[in-house]
Amino acid sequence: MTIREDAQQGKMTEIFTNCALREGVSPEFLMAGVAKGVIAIPKNKNHNFANITGFGEGLTTKVNANIGSSKDHQGVEQELRKLCVSLKAGTDAVMDLSMGGDLNEVRREILKSCPIPLGTVPIYQAVAEAVEINNQAIGEVSVDRIFETIRQQAEDGVDFMTIHCGLTRNTVERLRGHQRRMGVVSRGGSFIMEWMARNQKENPFYEHFDELMAILREHEVTLSLGDGVRPGCLADATDGGQLQELLHLGELTQRAWDAGVQVIVEGPGHMPMDQIEANVMLQKRICHGAPFYVLGPLVTDIAPGYDHITGAIGGAIAARAGADFLCYVTPAEHLKLPSIDDVREGVIASRIAAHAADICKGAPGGMERDIAMADCRNNLDWKGQIDFSIDPEKARRFREDGGTYKGDACSMCGSYCAIKVYQKASRMDTEQQTA
Amino acid sequence: MTIREDAQQGKMTEIFTNCALREGVSPEFLMAGVAKGVIAIPKNKNHNFANITGFGEGLTTKVNANIGSSKDHQGVEQELRKLCVSLKAGTDAVMDLSMGGDLNEVRREILKSCPIPLGTVPIYQAVAEAVEINNQAIGEVSVDRIFETIRQQAEDGVDFMTIHCGLTRNTVERLRGHQRRMGVVSRGGSFIMEWMARNQKENPFYEHFDELMAILREHEVTLSLGDGVRPGCLADATDGGQLQELLHLGELTQRAWDAGVQVIVEGPGHMPMDQIEANVMLQKRICHGAPFYVLGPLVTDIAPGYDHITGAIGGAIAARAGADFLCYVTPAEHLKLPSIDDVREGVIASRIAAHAADICKGAPGGMERDIAMADCRNNLDWKGQIDFSIDPEKARRFREDGGTYKGDACSMCGSYCAIKVYQKASRMDTEQQTA
Repeated sequence: MTIREDAQQGKMTEIFTNCALREGVSPEFLMAGVAKGVIAIPKNKNHNFANITGFGEGLTTKVNANIGSSKDHQGVEQELRKLCVSLKAGTDAVMDLSMGGDLNEVRREILKSCPIPLGTVPIYQAVAEAVEINNQAIGEVSVDRIFETIRQQAEDGVDFMTIHCGLTRNTVERLRGHQRRMGVVSRGGSFIMEWMARNQKENPFYEHFDELMAILREHEVTLSLGDGVRPGCLADATDGGQLQELLHLGELTQRAWDAGVQVIVEGPGHMPMDQIEANVMLQKRICHGAPFYVLGPLVTDIAPGYDHITGAIGGAIAARAGADFLCYVTPAEHLKLPSIDDVREGVIASRIAAHAADICKGAPGGMERDIAMADCRNNLDWKGQIDFSIDPEKARRFREDGGTYKGDACSMCGSYCAIKVYQKASRMDTEQQTA
Repeated sequence: MTIREDAQQGKMTEIFTNCALREGVSPEFLMAGVAKGVIAIPKNKNHNFANITGFGEGLTTKVNANIGSSKDHQGVEQELRKLCVSLKAGTDAVMDLSMGGDLNEVRREILKSCPIPLGTVPIYQAVAEAVEINNQAIGEVSVDRIFETIRQQAEDGVDFMTIHCGLTRNTVERLRGHQRRMGVVSRGGSFIMEWMARNQKENPFYEHFDELMAILREHEVTLSLGDGVRPGCLADATDGGQLQELLHLGELTQRAWDAGVQVIVEGPGHMPMDQIEANVMLQKRICHGAPFYVLGPLVTDIAPGYDHITGAIGGAIAARAGADFLCYVTPAEHLKLPSIDDVREGVIASRIAAHAADICKGAPGGMERDIAMADCRNNLDWKGQIDFSIDPEKARRFREDGGTYKGDACSMCGSYCAIKVYQKASRMDTEQQTA
């Protein structure tokens, strides 16, 4: 029995009770959400970790950090450091997107140290090994090889997998009908496109969807339905290609659920602010309320070096509208593989977006910490302000950098601190009036 | 005749033609907006500068950078460096909030080098001189002294002044009726509160509003109506005190207009995402469409060190809803006086927010640059991508930091660049189909 099947049959397990404790909701609420499909709890049978996490309706908005080696930046050490930094910064999930070095080793080492759900994009490994080891072209990788990789990763304990099942020939047809400025910017999506073009066949994940579900079901892997034709620039957002793929993702969500597999659906990408709410509504409607996992969205194309900020703007709006899971974007996006610092900045920016939205969503815990912070500010309690900060180390460093400051105020206002002046004025007012 | 009076009488001047050229609208459009009050063009008679800038309806969203010395960080040099950095980062206006050192000297040096509108908060200087030079308490500064400071700054060429005219005894009354977690966090607001408490008199700016208008009118200073009781935390947002002050600001907007003075209205502050649109609507409605100048808004209280990001989220939402002018917030907010780097980060974050909103507002120029960037990305034209970046230096540095990368891709994907793979797949597809 899978987690979804347990939920459907009302069988209470430790997955639900542990997750409920962490999420601050009742186990029954969680179970009902999983049964309905509006909540997913990615947890591979072979990955034992402490923080059983739920993604979806009625829960706090979650954040994912992408890490992983590239062909030019290999090495397990570096990726383990990124894992640690992203954990410390408070990410809820991590994806290993490695394409360079010994991919099995990198993944297994990350899994060993990973106390949260780990995701992958298995086509990356299948393609990288075909190209680097077998000297094949991207589209020459065999279907058997791809499915073998998926099976291997599932056995290793990967909790959720991005698979681009909806990028069908039909989707490509619709895409062609639109004059996109940029074509396909999803790496996995482009691999599938090359595979389909070279072999003149249907997307193998779509063609062999039942087989795929059997593997995921067996190891309890959550399917993250990839959006291979997500827009790569504002001008391409919400076009026919994107929507055609979404329609397929809606159909496949139901088929995965019917196979006992939990589902998360991925979404754009680059998008003007005023299209975000509609996109969240569309995804929720077409995909029957499945948890929505967005990349950004980035609300302008012109800010390379600052895409953690463009992504935080879009992510906050998307989460408030109902998106459940934000994939971080780092300052390095569009420019280079992220550094350790970029990873930290990316996680924090996404967490800010998620939290700002959760305040409005009425998510469990919502505004409690903001209220605690307000009280510390009002009391000029600096220790408390630092403790309640989303990044206490940075807050402490900035506070100390302020250098000389008068007593309990900060170097912005010094003795002209508004809080102190106001409190004095209030006392004066009261004295005058009672005198 | 003031700019507003010229506009009302349909007298076309160089102010309108120069500003129109810069704003990408017709001089007639600008003039009609100024006549109606929905656009302000701050331009002191005694400050000659190149970039005559409009703030308001139908124009791009503008950004302000606050600079200025504090009691513990004095010196003209440092402030001139901040001015340069904020100009280079693309700010549209600057405010000198100095409270330390020789305030006249600092302001005059900044004005000399300032090619954009400069704002001040004159009560800062009046109070700082009373306290530091005359050993007075904040509330002991005389009304004459305050007005003398305003006159002096107006003569020096300050283009717009924040004056907290709406923080009346009536506002204080409403404020008392609400259990705020934090009281008053506006520095100028707290000074007025202490003055009123100590003297048990009405706010002198409200009491002597006509006299104030006469000074501003004479030197063509735009009135920026300060919000002295803006919320200092999410829990205090949109309360009775804030709204009472807004009601006064609405009345005073009309009185200033009647005196021939241009008006901008300031707004919060700290605010949950889902209250921002309503606040913009309220300000526009109550203040008769006057340009709205927001500080942030910050959408969570728990991110000191990252308030440029919380402010960018709030600012983007506010600007999309109709706010015209965003006051930057730097990473140093709540912790210390901003450094040079903080100033740069703050301006860029606000510009991202303003631009993301302008795309949706249909502001002049709107999405042109995003489209150019998309085309450069699609062509892997790195020079173009850097040139069209909001901060070309950072984009270039990150690109170079990427180190070894294969040919024209970046170190994120190397030879697995989605754009290249997709383009190859498309060619393959076309060949197969025409074969």
